[in-house]
Amino acid sequence: MKKLFEKLNDIYKLKTTQSLLSWDQETQLPEGAIDFRSEQMAFLAKLQHQFHCSDSFKEELSKFVNCDTGECTDSLNSSDRRLIDCIYKDWKQSTALPEAFVEEYTKLCSKAQHVWQEAREKSNFKLFSPYLKRLVEMSKEKAKYLNPSNSAYDVLLDLYEEGLTVDTINPLFSKLREETVTLLKSVQQSKASFYDLGKHKYNTDQQWSFGLSVLEKMGYDFKRGRQDKSTHPFTIDISPSDVRITTRVDESKLMEALSSSIHEGGHGLYEQGLNTDFLGTPYCESVSLGIHESQSRIWEKVIGQSMPFWDHFYPKLGKCLPQLSDCTQDEFYRSINQVNPGFIRVEADELTYNLHIMIRYEIEQMIFNEGLSVDKLPEVWNEKVKDYLGLEVKNDKFGVLQDVHWSCGLFGYFPTYTMGNLYSVMLFEQLEKDIPDLRGYISKGDLGVVSEWSSEKIYTHGRRYSPPELIERITGSELSCDPFVSYLNRKYSKIYRL
Amino acid sequence: MKKLFEKLNDIYKLKTTQSLLSWDQETQLPEGAIDFRSEQMAFLAKLQHQFHCSDSFKEELSKFVNCDTGECTDSLNSSDRRLIDCIYKDWKQSTALPEAFVEEYTKLCSKAQHVWQEAREKSNFKLFSPYLKRLVEMSKEKAKYLNPSNSAYDVLLDLYEEGLTVDTINPLFSKLREETVTLLKSVQQSKASFYDLGKHKYNTDQQWSFGLSVLEKMGYDFKRGRQDKSTHPFTIDISPSDVRITTRVDESKLMEALSSSIHEGGHGLYEQGLNTDFLGTPYCESVSLGIHESQSRIWEKVIGQSMPFWDHFYPKLGKCLPQLSDCTQDEFYRSINQVNPGFIRVEADELTYNLHIMIRYEIEQMIFNEGLSVDKLPEVWNEKVKDYLGLEVKNDKFGVLQDVHWSCGLFGYFPTYTMGNLYSVMLFEQLEKDIPDLRGYISKGDLGVVSEWSSEKIYTHGRRYSPPELIERITGSELSCDPFVSYLNRKYSKIYRL
Repeated sequence: MKKLFEKLNDIYKLKTTQSLLSWDQETQLPEGAIDFRSEQMAFLAKLQHQFHCSDSFKEELSKFVNCDTGECTDSLNSSDRRLIDCIYKDWKQSTALPEAFVEEYTKLCSKAQHVWQEAREKSNFKLFSPYLKRLVEMSKEKAKYLNPSNSAYDVLLDLYEEGLTVDTINPLFSKLREETVTLLKSVQQSKASFYDLGKHKYNTDQQWSFGLSVLEKMGYDFKRGRQDKSTHPFTIDISPSDVRITTRVDESKLMEALSSSIHEGGHGLYEQGLNTDFLGTPYCESVSLGIHESQSRIWEKVIGQSMPFWDHFYPKLGKCLPQLSDCTQDEFYRSINQVNPGFIRVEADELTYNLHIMIRYEIEQMIFNEGLSVDKLPEVWNEKVKDYLGLEVKNDKFGVLQDVHWSCGLFGYFPTYTMGNLYSVMLFEQLEKDIPDLRGYISKGDLGVVSEWSSEKIYTHGRRYSPPELIERITGSELSCDPFVSYLNRKYSKIYRL
Repeated sequence: MKKLFEKLNDIYKLKTTQSLLSWDQETQLPEGAIDFRSEQMAFLAKLQHQFHCSDSFKEELSKFVNCDTGECTDSLNSSDRRLIDCIYKDWKQSTALPEAFVEEYTKLCSKAQHVWQEAREKSNFKLFSPYLKRLVEMSKEKAKYLNPSNSAYDVLLDLYEEGLTVDTINPLFSKLREETVTLLKSVQQSKASFYDLGKHKYNTDQQWSFGLSVLEKMGYDFKRGRQDKSTHPFTIDISPSDVRITTRVDESKLMEALSSSIHEGGHGLYEQGLNTDFLGTPYCESVSLGIHESQSRIWEKVIGQSMPFWDHFYPKLGKCLPQLSDCTQDEFYRSINQVNPGFIRVEADELTYNLHIMIRYEIEQMIFNEGLSVDKLPEVWNEKVKDYLGLEVKNDKFGVLQDVHWSCGLFGYFPTYTMGNLYSVMLFEQLEKDIPDLRGYISKGDLGVVSEWSSEKIYTHGRRYSPPELIERITGSELSCDPFVSYLNRKYSKIYRL
């Protein structure tokens, strides 16, 4: 497969160069250079598409697979077969869309993002709705090009989480919603009181270096990565030897920088842990957005907001930030885990976070499967927020307009956030079984055991197994929301003394 | 010419993307990512070459020029004719070299740079000499491919300074050498004493922000650029809207960071001042390395080490760095202009700097035109340093191995440094004529007049005129070393009270 790998590697070099352009744009680019940067990015995207759709790529690929039917050559072993399946799937997706369609869609997204920004600032949904309508239409067309035999929304879901369908999600989310709402009610009735971390200011340099020290303990390799500041935290992989994360630091919000660092650090560990023997191929790519998110959330929430984690880190944090001297570790732990239903998804606590995702998911389903008109979105949104979170949305800025995803044409993406949460607890429970004194390790700050385990179980395999196969291989169980629900109940019963 | 411009623009987007990869490598790249970065760079270089040498590029070009003879179509006006000449010349250079030759040469340079680094560290010329020999051989072959009818060294000179030949340089350098050596003797006999700036340490943050304030006054546009730290200061143009400079800061060396900032700022102003109506074409490119260097040197030396400049800036520097309170402005001015013949080119003062260049130039000539054996280089080098600078080289690290250029195959490049110095004073004298109260402006820190003048006279034209044409258009005179020599004599007579 050497020749095919070489061609994939050429595309990979273009893709990773584009990632650098993108990282630079978010962290370094002088403001006057934005227009030219867009041109560079568009040109590199076009080149990748051309390479992928070239006759010579198809020629190499067709040595291993029938490019019309997707059937692999008989002589392949099962590992190569899966590899070729993935390569074929990616190729099929690239070539399925006519160039004129891709061009129109790219332009629409670019324009829609600008309009969305303005609409959000002005809290004016009507500005955005014509674009959103067109985005929905084009996403339906896109799904038809990609796979005319499945329902449009299932085709879109599969783009981000291989094999995920509405039929899989519905029973999971339905149970999760019910359990979450029940627990939320108990929590809201509790009279537990909390230390107010918001009463202090926290030196941002101290926050920054504390975050770096945590990342090092996690096993994030700074010889193959770096951390910078950006408006919205993100992780970008320029190659497994160059994985960059960002965070934002605010002196009034102690946990914002640290949580973001740990969250992005989890994503970063995944990318650094890929198997470079397969560089440029699907076996050196993360398997899905949901599994990726499980790695950020296992670190940020399941470990980073647990008591054992702070056994090690709280004394250190106290030394950096003496204003915490009147706050005990227990008070601190409870405070960072406090439940506060709010309007904004990215600021949501661990309990209510999935409710935000479910609202998006339900609305996307209504749009794609039930023909809900885009004009009705604010109304439907606000009803659901009232229903699940008990809040009155006064302003679309803090409602339906809050997230960028739809303006980029990302429909079917949101559910992967909740999938990540469900996976994270399933994986953590297996980790506890595999490493009996896990709690002891974490309490001592020996976090390397976690990243080593994840590396062996997940990262090194790339896309060798589909997400459900991978989860079953590791945990022996099928995807379920039960472990996550029990985890939440255990955790919040203690914190809220229920 | 729209289609031809589009093709040039595609190449330009690749070239500028490669510039970003390079900037990132020098300032941001995690150390573990260097190998993959080299692959990205090589791939982008290959793509540019392929685009340039493609049939479709030749097809567009041949609409305006006979690609065999270089003769332009009759219908072109003189401006378009020059533009096509430049495009043709670049194309001819790209296509003249066989792909196998380019590949071997690129690999040789890459390997030679590594070996040179080791050889320099160990001060062991013999490690490097086999590579240098091969580099000389291949550079001779390269020159033959590019233009078999001229002498190899003249062909190489033309790569960096259009039209420059040994016949032009020899009389200039000969006079300059004589005058410099004479002046140096007087200076060395002088009993003038100087304030020792090396006796203090200088806060590096203060140095950094002082440098930024000077750059702003110069007219360097931070909306279209930025300054970062790197081991070796450089300027890189990602486009005229994104021109990045770097410097290095050392608490023991007050002038190092500032001089580098001003020097690179001068290069940066040139790139920011190009005419973007012609983006991607030779009319939006700097005309030559010599003219480029004139812009860095006019700022760094002619203005930045002049008394009027410090009329404005010395009181401000004194406020940042109170340790200078016992140093008058006059003492400061004299101290930063002190002459100290030394071994290292990049640390040389304004007077002896050109002697370093002439040593390189004379040796390059001997290699290419007189068959000097590479093995004899250390010996010849050391003799010349003794002769011109009066110093005994004890160590090749501080002698023939000090500069990176030859290991990158850059022969014929060094003379452009001295050309830059000669141009800089010619241009400054014209500037004084065109702006009668120039001294007054500079004394008030109104440096914008300088960059505006340079922009109108030089930057906006790109490669519209050849370097000699440009200098004659601006100053009305042919290139000469007389203005530079008089300038040095005036300046150092005062400083050394000769």
